Amino acid sequence: MQFSDFGQHFTRESAILQLMDDLGKALAQEGVNMLGGGNPARIPAVNALFAEVLRDIANGDDCAAAVENIGNYSEPQGDRAFLNTVAAFLRRHYGWSVSAENLALTNGSQNAFFYLFNLFGGAFTDNQGNTVQKSVLLPLAPEYVGYADVQVGGSRFVSVPPQIENVQYGGRDGFFKYRIDFDALEKLPQWAAGEIGAVCCSRPTNPSGNVLTDAEMARLDALARRHGVPLIIDNAYGMPFPNIIHRDAELVWHDNIILCFSLSKVGLPGVRCGIVLARPEVIRAITALNAVVNLAPTRFGAAVAAPLLQDDRLKTLADNVIRPFYRRQADLAVSLLQKEMADLPVRIHLPEGAIFLWLWFEGLPAGSDELYRRLKARGTLVIPSEPFFVGIDTAQFCHARECVRISIAQDQAVLARGIAAIAAEARALYGTG
Amino acid sequence: MQFSDFGQHFTRESAILQLMDDLGKALAQEGVNMLGGGNPARIPAVNALFAEVLRDIANGDDCAAAVENIGNYSEPQGDRAFLNTVAAFLRRHYGWSVSAENLALTNGSQNAFFYLFNLFGGAFTDNQGNTVQKSVLLPLAPEYVGYADVQVGGSRFVSVPPQIENVQYGGRDGFFKYRIDFDALEKLPQWAAGEIGAVCCSRPTNPSGNVLTDAEMARLDALARRHGVPLIIDNAYGMPFPNIIHRDAELVWHDNIILCFSLSKVGLPGVRCGIVLARPEVIRAITALNAVVNLAPTRFGAAVAAPLLQDDRLKTLADNVIRPFYRRQADLAVSLLQKEMADLPVRIHLPEGAIFLWLWFEGLPAGSDELYRRLKARGTLVIPSEPFFVGIDTAQFCHARECVRISIAQDQAVLARGIAAIAAEARALYGTG
Repeated sequence: MQFSDFGQHFTRESAILQLMDDLGKALAQEGVNMLGGGNPARIPAVNALFAEVLRDIANGDDCAAAVENIGNYSEPQGDRAFLNTVAAFLRRHYGWSVSAENLALTNGSQNAFFYLFNLFGGAFTDNQGNTVQKSVLLPLAPEYVGYADVQVGGSRFVSVPPQIENVQYGGRDGFFKYRIDFDALEKLPQWAAGEIGAVCCSRPTNPSGNVLTDAEMARLDALARRHGVPLIIDNAYGMPFPNIIHRDAELVWHDNIILCFSLSKVGLPGVRCGIVLARPEVIRAITALNAVVNLAPTRFGAAVAAPLLQDDRLKTLADNVIRPFYRRQADLAVSLLQKEMADLPVRIHLPEGAIFLWLWFEGLPAGSDELYRRLKARGTLVIPSEPFFVGIDTAQFCHARECVRISIAQDQAVLARGIAAIAAEARALYGTG
Repeated sequence: MQFSDFGQHFTRESAILQLMDDLGKALAQEGVNMLGGGNPARIPAVNALFAEVLRDIANGDDCAAAVENIGNYSEPQGDRAFLNTVAAFLRRHYGWSVSAENLALTNGSQNAFFYLFNLFGGAFTDNQGNTVQKSVLLPLAPEYVGYADVQVGGSRFVSVPPQIENVQYGGRDGFFKYRIDFDALEKLPQWAAGEIGAVCCSRPTNPSGNVLTDAEMARLDALARRHGVPLIIDNAYGMPFPNIIHRDAELVWHDNIILCFSLSKVGLPGVRCGIVLARPEVIRAITALNAVVNLAPTRFGAAVAAPLLQDDRLKTLADNVIRPFYRRQADLAVSLLQKEMADLPVRIHLPEGAIFLWLWFEGLPAGSDELYRRLKARGTLVIPSEPFFVGIDTAQFCHARECVRISIAQDQAVLARGIAAIAAEARALYGTG
C-alpha cells in the first residue's frame, strides 16, 4: 500500500504523537514517574463533582435525557442547548454580546487548532489567481508543541526568540521569565509581504506557564488588527475554567479575536470538548469542517458540562479547588527542585499558570533531548524543549535545547522521585554527578 | 479575514453540511416529517439497554471507572481496553487473527473516511519525484454523500453508472436493484495509468440499501489486490452490529481490506465512535492522524460499549431487536409507498439493508432537487439524489436526478404523512396532481 503526500506528511514521526504515545504507555505501566504528559491531576473534589453529575444524569428521569443525547447526532456546530448555555454563561460573567452564532464545539482544542491553522495558514489564492503562502505568527516561543504538525501542506509558523529576564518568585532567586520581543515581531518582513495569516498565543502558555500581561495582549491585539488578521488565543488553562492562572489578568474578546476554551484541563479530557468563540463567519467555517471531518462533534461532554455551567458549579470548582490545587503543586515542585538541584545551573520559569514547570539547564552538555532519553530509560518521563520552539530556527539558539517541561499534576511522591531522577541525570550530563 | 485555499474548499456549500444542517434544524422543530437524516430510530429496547449501562456505570464502584475514563486522555489509537475488547469479540465471532494492533478508534466513521480518503486519494509522489493524482474508486453509484467533500485537495473520486435490474420484492413488482458494471469498472483507463489509490464501497449501501453479493465482494477484493490497492468497506450498517441486513451475506476480512465499523447506527451517534480494522501500517497512520487532528479520540463511547461487547449483549440486541425493527419499518414504508403512489411511475430499490429506502421517479420533470425544495417548504425532509452519485458525470445520466432517499427510522404516523406529502408533490411535478 502506498500513502499519498498527505499520508506521508502525517505519518512522519510528529512531536505530538510521540508525546501522546509516551503518555498512553506510561499510564498503562506501573511505577513510571509521569512528569511528561498533559493529563490533568486526579483531584478528589473534582472527581466527586463529575461522579455526582454522572449519577444525576443516569438516575431518575434524567437518564432519558442522556440516552436522547447519546442517541442523536448534534448539529455540526455542536449541541445547540449547550451552545446556548455557554453563550449565557459568557454574557453573565463577562458582559460580552455573544450568542450561539459566535460559538462552535470541536472534538477538543487540538481539533480546533487543526481547523484554525489550516484556515489561516498555508496556501492562499489572491484576486489575480496567484498563490501566496501564509504563516501563523506565534509571538512567544516556546509555544505548544501540538501546533507544530497540524498544517496539511507542511508546517508554516514564524516566531522570534524571546527576551529572557531574571526574576524572583516569592522573594527567591533562580527564576526567569520570557518576554515577547515586540520590536523584532513588529518588524518581521513577512508582514510587509502579506505572508502572515494569523497571530496565535496560548495564555497561560503551554509549556512555560508564562501569562502574557494585559499590556502584551493589548499590543498583540493591536498588531493583529493593524494587519487585518485574527488574534487566536488558546485559553485551555485560562479563565473562567480551569482558571489555572496565578497573577492578575483580564480576559478580553471582540470579533477580531478567536478565543478557544477547553473542558480538558478542568478534568474532562476523555469527553473531547473544545469551545471556540469567534465572529459568525469563523464559526460557520468551523461548522463546515466539523461536518466534513467528523459529521458532528461529540456530544456527551455537553451533557456533563451543561448543568455545571448553568449554576456556576464549574466556575466555583475552578476558583476554589482547581486553581489553588495547582498553585500548591507549583510551590511544592519549586521547593523540591530547589532542594534537589541547588548545585546545578538550573533556572525555573516563573510559575504563573498552567499545569507545568519549565526548567532551563544552562549550557547542558548534549542537550535536553539526551536528558529525556536517559530519563525515559530509567522510568521518568519529561518533555524535551526543542519541539516547543515552533517557528524558530533553533540551530543558532542553544537555549532551545536546554530546557524541559515537567507536569506538576502528579502527587508528592511521584514529583519527589521524578525530580530526584532529573537532578541525578542532569548532574551526570554536566559531569558533576 | 481571509481564508486559505483549504478554508475556501471546506467552507463551500457541501452536501454533507446541508444534510446535517437540515437534520439539526428539523430535530429542533416541531411537526417536521423527518425522512431526511441519518439518525437511527428511537427503539425502546435499545434505549432501555443504554440506560441500564449508563446506570451501571454511574452507580456503585463503577462511577470511579467512568470518572477515570472521562478524566484521562486515551492513547491516540483509542482506549486500549476497548481495543482489546473489540479484538477479542472479532476473534470469537469470526475467527480472524486480529489484535489491538489491527484496530484504531476514530470520532465516528466520517472521521475515519476523512483520514482514509486523504491517505489513499489525492497527490502522490513517485520515486522520480513526480506527482501523480490518484482517485478513490467507488464501484457502485449511488454511494454515501458524506464521502464527496472530504479530500483536502478537492474531490477525486471515480465511478461508473450502475446496471439497473427490475426485480420483485415479496412477490410484488415495482422494485429495482443496482448491479456493479464490472466490465466498465475493470476497464477504467485510470487503472493502467496508476491513478486509482483505493476501492471503497458501503455494504449495505447508503443510500440505496443495496447489499453487494458475496460474489460481487469477492470480485472487488480480487480487483483491488490485483492492482495493489486496499479495499475499504464501510460497514456502518453491516454485521455484527447494527446488522441491518436482510439477505445472506458473509463478512470477510484480510490484511488488504480496511473494514470500518460504527457505533452510530446501533443507537449511539452522539458518542462518536468509529472502529477501523486494518493492517498495522494503516492503523499506525490513523493513530498519527488522530494525534494531530484530535490529540486522542473521544472515550466515553468505549465505556458504554465495552461491557456490551464483552457479553455479546450488543450483538444480541442487533440480531433480535434492531434488525427485525428495520425489516418491519421497510415493509411498512413499502406498503405505504405502494398505496400512496400506485398512480405514479415510481420504483423502489430492493430493501436489502440500512435504514433508508431509495425511490426512483422515472422521468421526473424538474428532477428530485426541485421535489426536495418543494417538500422542505412544506415540512417534509428527504434527500435528493444527485449528490450521491459521487465520482460520476451526471450530465448525461438522467437517472441520477430522478431519485430520493427517505429514512425509515421514524414512526408510522410520520412515515405516512411524509410519504403522502412526497406523493402529492411528485404528482404535481408530473402534472397529474
